[in-house]
Amino acid sequence: MILHHMPMSAPCRFVRLLLAEYGVEAQLHEERPWERRPEFLAMNPAGTIPVLVAEAGVPLSGAHPIAEYLDETRGVMARERRLMPDYPLERAEVRRLVDWFIVKLEADVTRALVRERIDKLAMPAELGGGAPDSGAMRAARANIRQHLRYLNWLAGTRDWLGAPSISAADIAAGAAVSILDYMGEIDWSGVPQARDWYTRMKSRPSFRPLLADRVRGLTPVSHYADLDF
Amino acid sequence: MILHHMPMSAPCRFVRLLLAEYGVEAQLHEERPWERRPEFLAMNPAGTIPVLVAEAGVPLSGAHPIAEYLDETRGVMARERRLMPDYPLERAEVRRLVDWFIVKLEADVTRALVRERIDKLAMPAELGGGAPDSGAMRAARANIRQHLRYLNWLAGTRDWLGAPSISAADIAAGAAVSILDYMGEIDWSGVPQARDWYTRMKSRPSFRPLLADRVRGLTPVSHYADLDF
Repeated sequence: MILHHMPMSAPCRFVRLLLAEYGVEAQLHEERPWERRPEFLAMNPAGTIPVLVAEAGVPLSGAHPIAEYLDETRGVMARERRLMPDYPLERAEVRRLVDWFIVKLEADVTRALVRERIDKLAMPAELGGGAPDSGAMRAARANIRQHLRYLNWLAGTRDWLGAPSISAADIAAGAAVSILDYMGEIDWSGVPQARDWYTRMKSRPSFRPLLADRVRGLTPVSHYADLDF
Repeated sequence: MILHHMPMSAPCRFVRLLLAEYGVEAQLHEERPWERRPEFLAMNPAGTIPVLVAEAGVPLSGAHPIAEYLDETRGVMARERRLMPDYPLERAEVRRLVDWFIVKLEADVTRALVRERIDKLAMPAELGGGAPDSGAMRAARANIRQHLRYLNWLAGTRDWLGAPSISAADIAAGAAVSILDYMGEIDWSGVPQARDWYTRMKSRPSFRPLLADRVRGLTPVSHYADLDF
């Protein structure tokens, strides 16, 4: 399998973690979506990442179709390591939280901060590169506190975020939180349950490659790869 | 079951059509998300529609979790009327297209036009109501043509949009297209395959309640409910 991704994309990290949790080897290819490569658009007309080239060379586009595909082809065989619960109502709750972290947190916070602080350094000026827009960053940062409070509440009332055992909801949340943490955007004081939960997530072997990621122009916050932060 | 919805929301129409296709009776409750009713936020902290109150009074939030839940609890028993194909790669293609129409077309076109032309008539001024923003409408309309061309291409190269038989991809596309058509935003000339496909969709019994919908302040285009338009 080949995964077309960017290291600081939450939907892409979500897929990388799922692959690692299920022990699926995939070759990583960095795809800058703003370049709109014709070969990439032929695989995914939406022009978005992640795209996973799966069995038979068929490209699968989007975090949600890819996650369901991995559950159907890998999860069902993983038994107690499956990242989706068995019952439809519980599965709906896991999917709600996956959407929360991969779609809503992404739209409210993560996408704007990554674009302004990381992607714009790599983009040519004519495609939107250049100095960060401080208004966009301020708007995104204004939403972080409420999201952290919700994460803290979830982590404090349940063993894992979406189900009695670890599920795709934790993987999605870990993917998004790890990017915000890299950028030093998370104030961990005052959210001890969220912090405990993230400590457990970080120490999973699937997280190791993510904690080794570095992007040009922005070094991670000092505790980023520290398992006991 | 109770569906909290708005008549001119594509994700909500998607769920109404799925329920009707599977013969599930649901009571409809109109929920104006901008009012942020505490009872509604308690069901779905994201504050978004649709929310389906399912078995045992458990609220399911979001078009994607609801659609998967209906597939798991109704679709699997519907045999050849199931709206998801049997094979994982085909299922991934259907989900990609559901995302296309319910997430991407929604973000590129539908949400802005519904907000400016319909929702703002019902919103109090302090919550964003008032005159439509012509810049936002222009930006949305600039994206319609390309979406219609893609729909026409899909309809022209396949019997149905996502799979050899009708699937959730057609239901999602029909949901979104019906709203744009209500508002008279679709120029059907030059996209004959899309038109043929939509004629077939419109004549399904599941569509009847949608074609009878009317919203305050905007009468539908004359051919909206016409099965042979």
